[in-house]
Amino acid sequence: MTGQQLWERYQRHLCTCPRTGIQLDISRMPFPDDYFARMAEPIGKACCAMDALEGGALANADEGRQVGHYWLRDPSRAPSPEFAADISETLSQVKTFAGDVHSRKVRPAGAEGFENVLVVGIGGSALGPQLLADALGSSADRMRVSLLDNTDPDGIDRTLADLGEALRHTLTLVISKSGGTKETRNGMVEVAHTYRNLGLDFARHAIAVTGRDSALHRRSREENWLAMFPMWDWVGGRTSVTSAVGMLPAALQGIDVDAFLAGARDMDATTRQHDVPSNPAALMALMWHHATEGRGSKDLVILPYKDRLALLARYLQQLVMESLGKEVDLRGNVVRQGLTVYGNKGSTDQHAYVQQLREGVHNFFVTFVEVLRDRPGTSVPVEPGVTSGDYLHGFLLGTREALFEKGRASMTITLPELNAGTLGALIALYERTVGLYASLIDVNAYHQPGVEAGKKAAERVIDLQRRICETLPYDRPQTATEVAAAIDAPDEVETVFKVLEHLAANPDRGVLRTSGGEPLQARYHRSEQRSGG
Amino acid sequence: MTGQQLWERYQRHLCTCPRTGIQLDISRMPFPDDYFARMAEPIGKACCAMDALEGGALANADEGRQVGHYWLRDPSRAPSPEFAADISETLSQVKTFAGDVHSRKVRPAGAEGFENVLVVGIGGSALGPQLLADALGSSADRMRVSLLDNTDPDGIDRTLADLGEALRHTLTLVISKSGGTKETRNGMVEVAHTYRNLGLDFARHAIAVTGRDSALHRRSREENWLAMFPMWDWVGGRTSVTSAVGMLPAALQGIDVDAFLAGARDMDATTRQHDVPSNPAALMALMWHHATEGRGSKDLVILPYKDRLALLARYLQQLVMESLGKEVDLRGNVVRQGLTVYGNKGSTDQHAYVQQLREGVHNFFVTFVEVLRDRPGTSVPVEPGVTSGDYLHGFLLGTREALFEKGRASMTITLPELNAGTLGALIALYERTVGLYASLIDVNAYHQPGVEAGKKAAERVIDLQRRICETLPYDRPQTATEVAAAIDAPDEVETVFKVLEHLAANPDRGVLRTSGGEPLQARYHRSEQRSGG
Repeated sequence: MTGQQLWERYQRHLCTCPRTGIQLDISRMPFPDDYFARMAEPIGKACCAMDALEGGALANADEGRQVGHYWLRDPSRAPSPEFAADISETLSQVKTFAGDVHSRKVRPAGAEGFENVLVVGIGGSALGPQLLADALGSSADRMRVSLLDNTDPDGIDRTLADLGEALRHTLTLVISKSGGTKETRNGMVEVAHTYRNLGLDFARHAIAVTGRDSALHRRSREENWLAMFPMWDWVGGRTSVTSAVGMLPAALQGIDVDAFLAGARDMDATTRQHDVPSNPAALMALMWHHATEGRGSKDLVILPYKDRLALLARYLQQLVMESLGKEVDLRGNVVRQGLTVYGNKGSTDQHAYVQQLREGVHNFFVTFVEVLRDRPGTSVPVEPGVTSGDYLHGFLLGTREALFEKGRASMTITLPELNAGTLGALIALYERTVGLYASLIDVNAYHQPGVEAGKKAAERVIDLQRRICETLPYDRPQTATEVAAAIDAPDEVETVFKVLEHLAANPDRGVLRTSGGEPLQARYHRSEQRSGG
Repeated sequence: MTGQQLWERYQRHLCTCPRTGIQLDISRMPFPDDYFARMAEPIGKACCAMDALEGGALANADEGRQVGHYWLRDPSRAPSPEFAADISETLSQVKTFAGDVHSRKVRPAGAEGFENVLVVGIGGSALGPQLLADALGSSADRMRVSLLDNTDPDGIDRTLADLGEALRHTLTLVISKSGGTKETRNGMVEVAHTYRNLGLDFARHAIAVTGRDSALHRRSREENWLAMFPMWDWVGGRTSVTSAVGMLPAALQGIDVDAFLAGARDMDATTRQHDVPSNPAALMALMWHHATEGRGSKDLVILPYKDRLALLARYLQQLVMESLGKEVDLRGNVVRQGLTVYGNKGSTDQHAYVQQLREGVHNFFVTFVEVLRDRPGTSVPVEPGVTSGDYLHGFLLGTREALFEKGRASMTITLPELNAGTLGALIALYERTVGLYASLIDVNAYHQPGVEAGKKAAERVIDLQRRICETLPYDRPQTATEVAAAIDAPDEVETVFKVLEHLAANPDRGVLRTSGGEPLQARYHRSEQRSGG
């Protein structure tokens, strides 16, 4: 194609969103001319399914649940006045509470006011807050946000050591929709212990964001925590960023949550349209379908040229892969669907894996994210007439071109600038794209049945460990095989071995290892002292 | 397979490294019994090629260069006494310099001593320092490390605003092997400008790590920077972490660089062996080959269950994808090779994309990284007898099992604990694996010819922009098409449009946009004021 033909293709397919000014360029995706005509019926059906979902259908059929994240930015669209009121009141309470913290009406016992926020959550209860904090935060933030998103003891130690005495003026937000997520429960227990060690009352620093009447809600009530904000079973974790899950930490940090919600609402209005050429979510869903033959045959590389969007790919990794990575379709056929997402940021990644993208395995397509505004202030020249931002922009265009030359497909999303509104819109764009694409490939985008298996297998390991610890003798060192036999789990000897190795590596756990010549011949016994029990 | 059979397979294939205690478990990779026999000849050849490389062969044939990162941890193996002396002296100078900074023998003009390190680098000059700083840092560090790894103006602003007045006692390390990387040059210019704005002499805060007689070296000499440490053309950026690139920031931070190098050296000794069952790099290379049919047909998911290793996957993404992602093999055949790497950390990622791994597209294999030691101190129970670390470990084993049940392959690397030595060994393990695997698939792992294309295309964009800025009239607003014609680049109208949109979005650039009805009908002209020029 000549430059002139490319320019015509660019103009023909460019989709510009009203209000947000966000643009989607699909001209460098190699779909044929008749593609939209061929796909008119399935994408039309997908748009209708989305209408039904927004209208309150049980779109998450397996779990018998409605799917209501779009209502969060426009409560008037909620299917009942009760839902609408609940959404509006919760948002209002979030903003009031954040205001009370900022004005020091709400404050800790021994300090002037709260200055830090510690979010304890994982998955959908962490990625949204984390993305917003990083993408929109600055040294002018009202509060500094940190995060515990795992059950790694050393990671917990490090985060708490970084906070140190600042825990005295730190609000801890425990976020768990079910209220029973083990990683979050463990983080909470460790954090509460650390507050107590500083002589502080954890409850007077603690806030729950959770489903009504969950275990976490009950605990927060019994212990008289500072506040509780509700999650609803019609909002999935990975689409909860516009609920209190995302809005509470953001409001505390000082982010303009109204602008964020307005951006999402504007994008919702744009992506609600059935007219495909003016609906960027429909266009993206069709591009995903074309690029991956509707079966995830290529990975989606997300390359935002903006440091603040370095976590976007990780956020989308969850949104996309947990929504689309399904074994069976809606009719029960085994389909093993999905769409793999990875990426970090440009131009940094040009010095990492773009070598492979240009020359190597052709197993991907790219979405560039371009932000036109470079910085709030003025730029110094790095060469006469040229700024750092010109280079950043030039590297994006250059890499787009270098990939195109080699037949590698890419889309480009353009944001006029990065702010709360455009970030809200960008997230809403992807939420809708995932929903429409799920319809095209006929899977339920709103459950995650595969996550349970790993949790249950982990519970079996924990149970095995309990039995090992009860049974392991003090005096006669035993091999893993002997221990497995003693707890009547001879078939689980490999897991028993792994558990014993883990316990023995931690001196406070009271399991001693007597090494034989070979590592696998090691014997284990209990010592007298023992913590964690 | 029964649990007993799995245990036998586990024991039969477990590879335990002497000294470091690192283990590799390949028992959950579905290679057939005769696989090692079938692959004996190619892996034997790969080991011989590695011997030649370590002996000083021109292993990077396309660039006519030796490949010497293994010498960096054992200078006695360098092919000449000059190289050996240069390596040893540079390391010694790195440690002396760091000591002088810590003892405040080297200090800034207006402050007691240097307290911060700012690394300016990208790709191989940033990922190693970044991984080490995050994986081995603590609140007890001698100096706090921050990083500029891009040419994003807003990202630069944010990093420098975080430092603020602390720039007065900040050492800036400008790291660029070629000395001409634009992102790094731009970061350096912006940083120097900020020092000057604070009334500080950048040169008295600046250190170069670069090739001898590079543009950066010359500049550092002319401006009388604090110090310069050499890079060598026989060390590639992505394997430069054991050179001054990684060791200087690490030593300044207070990391035990000798332990790190010793760990790498110990692993080198283990992975130098031709005996496959006791060489974990040879085993891993064979597993990659089996899992991806020797052509990158599956992605490699890296899942370390340890917060401190959250950047490992990003580090390996560069090491693996830039090394293996090649269009042609050593004989010039078009092969489009590679191995896609992504990942973050467990159990966090179980709440992100593990849904897809278990149920969805079967386009990956996993490497778990297990760290046996949970934390330095003792653990509180989160349930009777159970700690956070037990859960972390249980989730690893549970997910390994849940994936195995569904026929998804995984390997597990076990570290007794995470410290400078085991991290050095882990990196060395992957360096060797990449080298051996490159031999198996017959590609040059040590060049990156595809990276140039994007840079050149970017230079063309910058050049186009210069011509636009020279030509754009003050009075008569022009469309992109008219501007492209005026600079005699009618075929580049799409790029001209993108450049104009970028300039117009930044008020300090002196380009005004008059919007027509349609975005694509916009017209542009120059205003009087203009910065960046």
